[in-house]
Amino acid sequence: MRQTFIAQLEALNNDVIKMGSILELSTNEMILALDNTDTAISKKIIDRDDEIDLLEQQIEKDCINIIAKQQPLASDLRKITSIMKIITDIERIADHCVDISEYIIRLSKLPKVNPPKNLSDMISAMKKMVIGTIDSFVEGNLEKATKVIQADDEVDTYFEKITEELSETMQKDSNMVPQCICYLMIIKYLERMADHATNIAEWITFIVTGDLVIG
Amino acid sequence: MRQTFIAQLEALNNDVIKMGSILELSTNEMILALDNTDTAISKKIIDRDDEIDLLEQQIEKDCINIIAKQQPLASDLRKITSIMKIITDIERIADHCVDISEYIIRLSKLPKVNPPKNLSDMISAMKKMVIGTIDSFVEGNLEKATKVIQADDEVDTYFEKITEELSETMQKDSNMVPQCICYLMIIKYLERMADHATNIAEWITFIVTGDLVIG
Repeated sequence: MRQTFIAQLEALNNDVIKMGSILELSTNEMILALDNTDTAISKKIIDRDDEIDLLEQQIEKDCINIIAKQQPLASDLRKITSIMKIITDIERIADHCVDISEYIIRLSKLPKVNPPKNLSDMISAMKKMVIGTIDSFVEGNLEKATKVIQADDEVDTYFEKITEELSETMQKDSNMVPQCICYLMIIKYLERMADHATNIAEWITFIVTGDLVIG
Repeated sequence: MRQTFIAQLEALNNDVIKMGSILELSTNEMILALDNTDTAISKKIIDRDDEIDLLEQQIEKDCINIIAKQQPLASDLRKITSIMKIITDIERIADHCVDISEYIIRLSKLPKVNPPKNLSDMISAMKKMVIGTIDSFVEGNLEKATKVIQADDEVDTYFEKITEELSETMQKDSNMVPQCICYLMIIKYLERMADHATNIAEWITFIVTGDLVIG
């Protein structure tokens, strides 16, 4: 019984890591697609979404089955219930890669404009958080999880800065409005991706320390 | 043991309903505040957020404790794990009431503009979904949950329509840009509120039928 349980927990852990790897791939490709307004990559990201959804459903069911059959206690139960939360956030981040890909396709149909000045810095900050959160799960690394939580303010600051810049651009040149709306939505999704990375980091903190701070 | 368990499940259920009532209050007040660009109500909504966060944390801990101590099986376990998901979505919807309230405060500092034409219809559609989802939880009503899921497309359609309208307004009059950006963010949050209501309806479907469809 105990052996089976350890094997099941390990399989569960590996599935979350697998979900994290797919997310990392989609995040990296989304950044590449955004850099080059690349519709082919965007479509690939959109097509990949089912894979993440199915994996989430499977992990969800596995969690419930393990709880029902193995009746885990204390730290094991904490880990399994946290995984049930973490996979939702992973799936949402992947969803936002899809949402951004759809706006990249819209942008590709409009006259080309320069992307906002601080966009690449915002992307770097968000990417560091998403990768940091996956790493901290794999390693059970509290320090890395804490760094992710602390970095969220930086992404929020970029969001405000870029919104201001897009506002000025639209006021100066009304031809730019449709493209700027696309960028407004894109930075909103980038900001949400960072928020979900923060949520995951909070769940990792809960797994490691038992302290539940959410909200 | 069984008596305690039944009492604990009932208390859990009541706490979720309580969280739903607070959400209903915040949703109604947010709609009122948005109608009148009312900063006093907006601030009240922002202040109430801690209450929802604390309730979420408490329910989360209670769920884990009940699973650990009572080792529920089958439909009870399904209900408890679903509640753990539902409260996250309730908290996010409440968060978005706060996010919208912050944009109402921003709007109040800018020259007054007419709200987008379809905004009140979008709000009605979203509100129906949020209330429908709370009702379907309270009643365990599959039919109401299904209606919530079906209504999501309507909210998405309003989102696209209003985005188009705001785009035209900004192109016609550059003085309107800052206010229109506020409304763009507000409708994005309204659309997210509807998405979270859909998630909750999907979890209610899972509680009632055992069919897990997420993503």
